[in-house]
Amino acid sequence: MRLGILTGGGDAPGLNAVIRAVVRAAMRTHGWPAVLGIPEGFKGLVERLDPIELTPFTTRGLINRGGTILHTTNRANPFQYPVGEDRYADRSDEAIQRIEELGIDALVVLGGDGSLSIAHKLAAKGVRVMGTPKTIDNDIQGTELCFGHQTAVATATDALDRLHTTAESHHRIMVVELMGRYAGWIALRAGVAGAADAILIPETPFEPDRLCARIRDRAQQGATFSIIVVAEGAKPKGGDVSVLQPGEGVYQAQLGGIGHQVAGMLEGVTHLETRVTVLGHVQRGGGPVAQDRLLATHYGVAAVDALARGEHNSMVTFDGQRIGTIPLEQVAGGFRPVPQDHPLLESARQLGVILGE
Amino acid sequence: MRLGILTGGGDAPGLNAVIRAVVRAAMRTHGWPAVLGIPEGFKGLVERLDPIELTPFTTRGLINRGGTILHTTNRANPFQYPVGEDRYADRSDEAIQRIEELGIDALVVLGGDGSLSIAHKLAAKGVRVMGTPKTIDNDIQGTELCFGHQTAVATATDALDRLHTTAESHHRIMVVELMGRYAGWIALRAGVAGAADAILIPETPFEPDRLCARIRDRAQQGATFSIIVVAEGAKPKGGDVSVLQPGEGVYQAQLGGIGHQVAGMLEGVTHLETRVTVLGHVQRGGGPVAQDRLLATHYGVAAVDALARGEHNSMVTFDGQRIGTIPLEQVAGGFRPVPQDHPLLESARQLGVILGE
Amino acid sequence: MRLGILTGGGDAPGLNAVIRAVVRAAMRTHGWPAVLGIPEGFKGLVERLDPIELTPFTTRGLINRGGTILHTTNRANPFQYPVGEDRYADRSDEAIQRIEELGIDALVVLGGDGSLSIAHKLAAKGVRVMGTPKTIDNDIQGTELCFGHQTAVATATDALDRLHTTAESHHRIMVVELMGRYAGWIALRAGVAGAADAILIPETPFEPDRLCARIRDRAQQGATFSIIVVAEGAKPKGGDVSVLQPGEGVYQAQLGGIGHQVAGMLEGVTHLETRVTVLGHVQRGGGPVAQDRLLATHYGVAAVDALARGEHNSMVTFDGQRIGTIPLEQVAGGFRPVPQDHPLLESARQLGVILGE
Amino acid sequence: MRLGILTGGGDAPGLNAVIRAVVRAAMRTHGWPAVLGIPEGFKGLVERLDPIELTPFTTRGLINRGGTILHTTNRANPFQYPVGEDRYADRSDEAIQRIEELGIDALVVLGGDGSLSIAHKLAAKGVRVMGTPKTIDNDIQGTELCFGHQTAVATATDALDRLHTTAESHHRIMVVELMGRYAGWIALRAGVAGAADAILIPETPFEPDRLCARIRDRAQQGATFSIIVVAEGAKPKGGDVSVLQPGEGVYQAQLGGIGHQVAGMLEGVTHLETRVTVLGHVQRGGGPVAQDRLLATHYGVAAVDALARGEHNSMVTFDGQRIGTIPLEQVAGGFRPVPQDHPLLESARQLGVILGE
Repeated sequence: MRLGILTGGGDAPGLNAVIRAVVRAAMRTHGWPAVLGIPEGFKGLVERLDPIELTPFTTRGLINRGGTILHTTNRANPFQYPVGEDRYADRSDEAIQRIEELGIDALVVLGGDGSLSIAHKLAAKGVRVMGTPKTIDNDIQGTELCFGHQTAVATATDALDRLHTTAESHHRIMVVELMGRYAGWIALRAGVAGAADAILIPETPFEPDRLCARIRDRAQQGATFSIIVVAEGAKPKGGDVSVLQPGEGVYQAQLGGIGHQVAGMLEGVTHLETRVTVLGHVQRGGGPVAQDRLLATHYGVAAVDALARGEHNSMVTFDGQRIGTIPLEQVAGGFRPVPQDHPLLESARQLGVILGE
Repeated sequence: MRLGILTGGGDAPGLNAVIRAVVRAAMRTHGWPAVLGIPEGFKGLVERLDPIELTPFTTRGLINRGGTILHTTNRANPFQYPVGEDRYADRSDEAIQRIEELGIDALVVLGGDGSLSIAHKLAAKGVRVMGTPKTIDNDIQGTELCFGHQTAVATATDALDRLHTTAESHHRIMVVELMGRYAGWIALRAGVAGAADAILIPETPFEPDRLCARIRDRAQQGATFSIIVVAEGAKPKGGDVSVLQPGEGVYQAQLGGIGHQVAGMLEGVTHLETRVTVLGHVQRGGGPVAQDRLLATHYGVAAVDALARGEHNSMVTFDGQRIGTIPLEQVAGGFRPVPQDHPLLESARQLGVILGE
Repeated sequence: MRLGILTGGGDAPGLNAVIRAVVRAAMRTHGWPAVLGIPEGFKGLVERLDPIELTPFTTRGLINRGGTILHTTNRANPFQYPVGEDRYADRSDEAIQRIEELGIDALVVLGGDGSLSIAHKLAAKGVRVMGTPKTIDNDIQGTELCFGHQTAVATATDALDRLHTTAESHHRIMVVELMGRYAGWIALRAGVAGAADAILIPETPFEPDRLCARIRDRAQQGATFSIIVVAEGAKPKGGDVSVLQPGEGVYQAQLGGIGHQVAGMLEGVTHLETRVTVLGHVQRGGGPVAQDRLLATHYGVAAVDALARGEHNSMVTFDGQRIGTIPLEQVAGGFRPVPQDHPLLESARQLGVILGE
Repeated sequence: MRLGILTGGGDAPGLNAVIRAVVRAAMRTHGWPAVLGIPEGFKGLVERLDPIELTPFTTRGLINRGGTILHTTNRANPFQYPVGEDRYADRSDEAIQRIEELGIDALVVLGGDGSLSIAHKLAAKGVRVMGTPKTIDNDIQGTELCFGHQTAVATATDALDRLHTTAESHHRIMVVELMGRYAGWIALRAGVAGAADAILIPETPFEPDRLCARIRDRAQQGATFSIIVVAEGAKPKGGDVSVLQPGEGVYQAQLGGIGHQVAGMLEGVTHLETRVTVLGHVQRGGGPVAQDRLLATHYGVAAVDALARGEHNSMVTFDGQRIGTIPLEQVAGGFRPVPQDHPLLESARQLGVILGE
């Protein structure tokens, strides 16, 4: 079998580790003749970019390297391809033609929900595809862990450790906005690991008055500082951020994201000195931590293994115990929030972490 | 309920994080009046050392701190307590008396197999105990993960990354001995995450001739270096290390541990420049990585929760999905090797890693 | 001699390491009876907060601990002390009275320009003071290196490494705003160490058109991404930021700091996808790197040594070769920009880094 | 000018950063047409290995990458080249012929004392050479800092931090052997930064009885543990290690290096539980810390600059303030120990660190 492989969407630690594992498993274990790397995601197919011949030798030293040697891009959906200023066209047939032309028997797609949905649509048109779940947000349906997530948690936890020493030295409220537009996995995990006093995630809209009251209570009971982790998708009950009336503090709360809004409100109401950090893209990059290298390696091997067994139009998964697969149609278009009964929410509650409830 | 807590056996990252979680869950959620820290493990009971009053305030900032604020010791089994030069006595009644005297209703023991076996024997004499599985080796029965293990894997992986750049620059065989006397979890996980070319673990005795042949093959096929990870408990088939005939290399192979023996053999047989690193105690220390902080927090909360439900004489567990408990009698005296069908062995095999088989 | 010690102004890695060194040198080498830690900076004097008795034992394990065990605060100038809503009074006599009352013969002040200026004014009123230069910005006059700076550089460099993998994967302009309101030391050092393509610092106002042209040139010559480091105090030639006409990009450039302004301009002019990261307070915290631990230790020992020699009203310094001292009057109120002929500017230039010139 | 560049001797963090800086400065600033990378050090010349054409593009992303893209080797002195089992020949003329054949006008050598001595001998035969001082041991004459050293110090300091948490938890003596056969720079810097209680370096032979007495005193005064850093070249007064009579402890002290010998002696004499860690090659590898990246960049730029000015047969230097050069004849064959009046020895003394005096 002749494999193609591409990476779609945003950067995530572990992309190179998956590529390395796919190449090794395919060529060393199954004896397949070649793995072709498609540069710049689906754009590389549509635009007929030169593929990169991958071998165990050329993928050496990649397991801990951040980024992707294949490059990637956010805006290259073959089914809705940009063809001019705000104009799009379906160029999926060209992509499929390119796959045939390159003699690719199956395409391994490293991507998040967007790329996996594209993969699913290509499958409907006859392409053999196999997905691996990539997103630091960890919100892809059908799997407990996406590669990249645990590195993002580690990076965010390290930032919280640093902010802790400053908050502690200064008697200050520190609001930290972490990634997670739809799901609060990074904020919840890094928040607990980084000893946050409050964690606000999209899945649990918070009651603004109650949050302010609890932070003020903390201060009155002698807590000299509070660290508040806010997922970028967190929102107040009812969802209307205009209820967050900022005080006349330093923050032009209405201008920034939810982190600034929460900070503005807290400073206005509690009169405690408040600072905001928006960690941003730093969470996305860097080499993968050991756990992500292992997960990425499992996924790469499992993707090849599934194709070798004749399976396709699937995504590899991990349920906490076993590596498996799931049909792409059960993945595409969905997402996986933190369930209300997740053990980490329960543990956080029992520690006394404020969860916005 | 009035809790006592002690840490037994060797250091492991996450001890302080468990202590912090136990104190918070006990006092904030259950409203229990006190948690008494017993210093220096079981010795603190037998020797009637002053306990430390623990509160959410005094355990602040502990989640990422290495070591244990309670100190620990390897040699303090109350049932076989050292009372002189090579003489031992059963002083368990004194330990139990001390527990009563301090008004301790239940004792949380953070320990490995040794400490948990002692806990189990104390339970047989009427003490309410709850264990949490601590060992960097990850070889305690009944749980998938012990706290401390993932940090040890991260530390060992970082060392492998560093050795890689040197091996690669120099065209050299690098043998790295990692911890794991009975089980190869650290060697297997760090070996795969650190891109080792061969991984030797106690569960899979290796065939010396075949190992040498495969390393020589690698060199002949153009590999300019090989990284070989050896668990300290790895052994050749048959178990007789004297079969590892060292060449007249630089290593006095018979003097060191298995790492030196394997290196001596390889250098002797392959005539490739070989170096050994015995990573040692560095693997045991330091602050916990994010994943160990989360696991330690779960364990601390779950230990309190189980006691609150009336359960005792158990250990908290994690099966990859759920936090649970298991009776101590099913834990004590056993150990958990890497099973031959473990997915990571299989993934390593498919990558082409030499596993000594 | 009976020492007092306090930390003033913002957090910086190494505060605890200085405290530890002062205590050890004073008590072990000079046999002085006590070192009193004044909590919360000068506020602790004015408000007569209880001092903390420091000893080699109580300062154990502090060398690598971030923050300050003495806590600190930004707003506690005894000469202009807040006494109500926007009202201030001179309470320096109370501070001096407190110093006498505590029997403090000399006061070691760990601080930046603000705290050292206060120290200098106290000296004018008869207090024996000794300063140690603390600021991550590294802009205190009279010394090449302030403790905390090298850790901030390491943290910022690590962030640049992470952003690099993402920029590289995505073909993107990444603007990173680093700390440095008046001096560009962090931006220059982290920028070169983190392989930035352009570095904008306050000392070298940039020519907006030329910057855009050079970034566009890079893209046209095949560079798939650019990393642009901007010190928070960077400014265009002439100093008028309104010349940075943002395009109709995603950035509301006029709302954020200079990082957002530069990004808005670049995206507008070059039509390349642009992202901003404002690293913020993360740069201020965490445990000190080895080099900062050594510098902090030198400074603590030298401060005690100078006092023992009868010197006072000085600050300890490092000129790259020798630890020394300088009178506080030569420090207070000044600041130290990156000189135009600094070797690192010259090296950056020769590498082809865009410096806004 | 047409440059050649090669890396000689052991691995050190920053080799790739120097290569990158040389290529950029040569091609971007001076407009030189080419930089040829010679693989595997001087062997690449003698054996006429294919050179690697280096450009700013092919050296992208190298600043933080450990190892060397040019590979290196310890055993390839052209003046004493291995030509058979224990036989050597002078093949320097072949090396010089190869340099001419490749059209190389000047050769940049990244190396330690061995490689720089070879460079100096090649210079005597007419080759234009420029050296950059590479060694983690930091013992090259004529410069305060060699690149690689500060990363080794950081790695060793991190290991000491980890061992600290274990020593502290256990009440134990921990002996840590660090690199430094002739000079104690790593041991001194990492020892102070890692809060070692005793530091033994080659420059200060230690008095065994006195060392044991002071460690025992520490224990009797309540210190529950001691961390002892030993440079691999440390030795007792008189230099005869057989005076270190081991007790009947667990150590076969006479078999290992000085770390094991010191540990055996201490355990035998003090009867305190003692453990040894030999950190080894881990200190040599990995990506460079920020300070080493800056130093390596300066050195690369300065090497090109000096050649452009017509200088040769020199090595670039750093005196703590300025980058400069020194004739190779003043470097070759010498070495730079820690001077007895070095400020860090003095600071360590004042902290109460045991220095073996």
